[in-house]
Amino acid sequence: MFTGLSAFPLTPMNEQGVREDEFSNLVERLAKAQVDSIGVLGSTGSYAYLSREARTRVTQLAVSSAGNVPVIIGIGALRTRDVLALAEDAQKAGASGVLLAPVSYQKLTDDEVFSHYETVCRSLSVPLCVYDNPGTTHFTFSDELHGRIAHLPQVRSIKVPPVSTDINAARERIARLRALIPEDVTMGISGDAVASTGLIAGCDSWYSVVGGLFPETALAITRAAQAGDAQTVQRLSDRLEPFWVLYREFGGSLRVIATVAEILGKVSTPCLPLPLNTLQGNQRNRVEQVIEQLDLR
Amino acid sequence: MFTGLSAFPLTPMNEQGVREDEFSNLVERLAKAQVDSIGVLGSTGSYAYLSREARTRVTQLAVSSAGNVPVIIGIGALRTRDVLALAEDAQKAGASGVLLAPVSYQKLTDDEVFSHYETVCRSLSVPLCVYDNPGTTHFTFSDELHGRIAHLPQVRSIKVPPVSTDINAARERIARLRALIPEDVTMGISGDAVASTGLIAGCDSWYSVVGGLFPETALAITRAAQAGDAQTVQRLSDRLEPFWVLYREFGGSLRVIATVAEILGKVSTPCLPLPLNTLQGNQRNRVEQVIEQLDLR
Repeated sequence: MFTGLSAFPLTPMNEQGVREDEFSNLVERLAKAQVDSIGVLGSTGSYAYLSREARTRVTQLAVSSAGNVPVIIGIGALRTRDVLALAEDAQKAGASGVLLAPVSYQKLTDDEVFSHYETVCRSLSVPLCVYDNPGTTHFTFSDELHGRIAHLPQVRSIKVPPVSTDINAARERIARLRALIPEDVTMGISGDAVASTGLIAGCDSWYSVVGGLFPETALAITRAAQAGDAQTVQRLSDRLEPFWVLYREFGGSLRVIATVAEILGKVSTPCLPLPLNTLQGNQRNRVEQVIEQLDLR
Repeated sequence: MFTGLSAFPLTPMNEQGVREDEFSNLVERLAKAQVDSIGVLGSTGSYAYLSREARTRVTQLAVSSAGNVPVIIGIGALRTRDVLALAEDAQKAGASGVLLAPVSYQKLTDDEVFSHYETVCRSLSVPLCVYDNPGTTHFTFSDELHGRIAHLPQVRSIKVPPVSTDINAARERIARLRALIPEDVTMGISGDAVASTGLIAGCDSWYSVVGGLFPETALAITRAAQAGDAQTVQRLSDRLEPFWVLYREFGGSLRVIATVAEILGKVSTPCLPLPLNTLQGNQRNRVEQVIEQLDLR
């Protein structure tokens, strides 16, 4: 479950609620493509913006639409108490694994984050992936803390933030972390634009935003990486460069992928919770051009 | 309401819920001291960690314990939809004003933040204070954006982040923002350690953490500032320097003030929601020493 391609779909919504049919369709598409796992209610799935009830409902829909593909559910919340409740909900609804980010409002200490993971792990019967995303959680893991948490028995993977685009620097970074964690804990790369570098540098999986909408595109890169074909990995990823440029210029992956999904009619417009907006005006035009140029569909 | 001393009490809680009696006692103490307003469910009041229902209950308790002192309620949340609901709840429960921070998970754009405030202001019948706290919201206001938002008719104050300790730099900073906002919009200083500088530099109010537990101490500084007695302001604030040192060394004001409240028995231990912890071990000993040294009670 924590190797290969983990595809993270959007949770399309508006001010009235989640668009359940559209969400199920996105998940079915991933199941049909036979991705290795489906990462539901990640940052791309806007978990932080949904109530406990809505998150349970989305989990149920995902599990029933995912066929034989394991579903990993994001259970992050500000309070340990709420994470425990979300973990129970996710397990009851059939999640195969959970993904936990140390979401913060007040800045957290290392000891607080460790205790948070320790408490949650004690209540889990499914494996957990540590979600390291300083851009949204505003918590920065030290390697030492990763090592401590990775030794908790339920921890089976770490979703690591973007590595350097320099392959040697990326290899060093992955090797440094690898040395501190148990052998059976996998490392997965986030940040689509450097995913190919991450995979070549030794990551076991790709926690992928683009894969949540275009699974075949992301699978081709992942399978080439798993076959050790670095040249094909690089070529396929380089082809998507105009897409990665949009991520860099327009404030990250979420708004771009959500805008693409709207333009292609995979989701209704708008699909993000206010105050978040998809891209408009000239930025939207740029996205349309890239969709056409890359023949994304 | 948005001038003088606005005192921000803790919302003492544990994993079972809010300690309602202790919270009411904290508010009554502020009312008795006749602070100018009580800022409930600010960052010190852990608003981000509480459910809508708990926040309504805390608002009701505050209003019924505050006597003739106006109560300002923090209504921040990730979603515009949730802020609208919280605003309605706060108004129904008798809030005299509201405090709104642009809380974020995904990084927000200036236009998103402006629309967020505009939408919320349209639904308000009480005045609003813009809560600028980049350390917790991870959104940085430009002066230009402050100017735009401050011209929305319901906006009556801006809670500004700590200014420079250099009085001339602080004066310049306050004057620069003042020039961009309407005359009847006040500016209040956050960051207890530089509050005296902020007040001398031209701020109309002090949004005070220490004032939420020690109202007389904070009132003495505020009243001296209002009388134009810069020397007394400085002397009274300098006396508290050992306290400000704790803020700096131990990761901000919340953990320090919560630890002080626990040590003095104003609240039960623990009083913060997990994963947050009050200070323990040597750090707690340091806090005890400062309490004794300053004769805080």
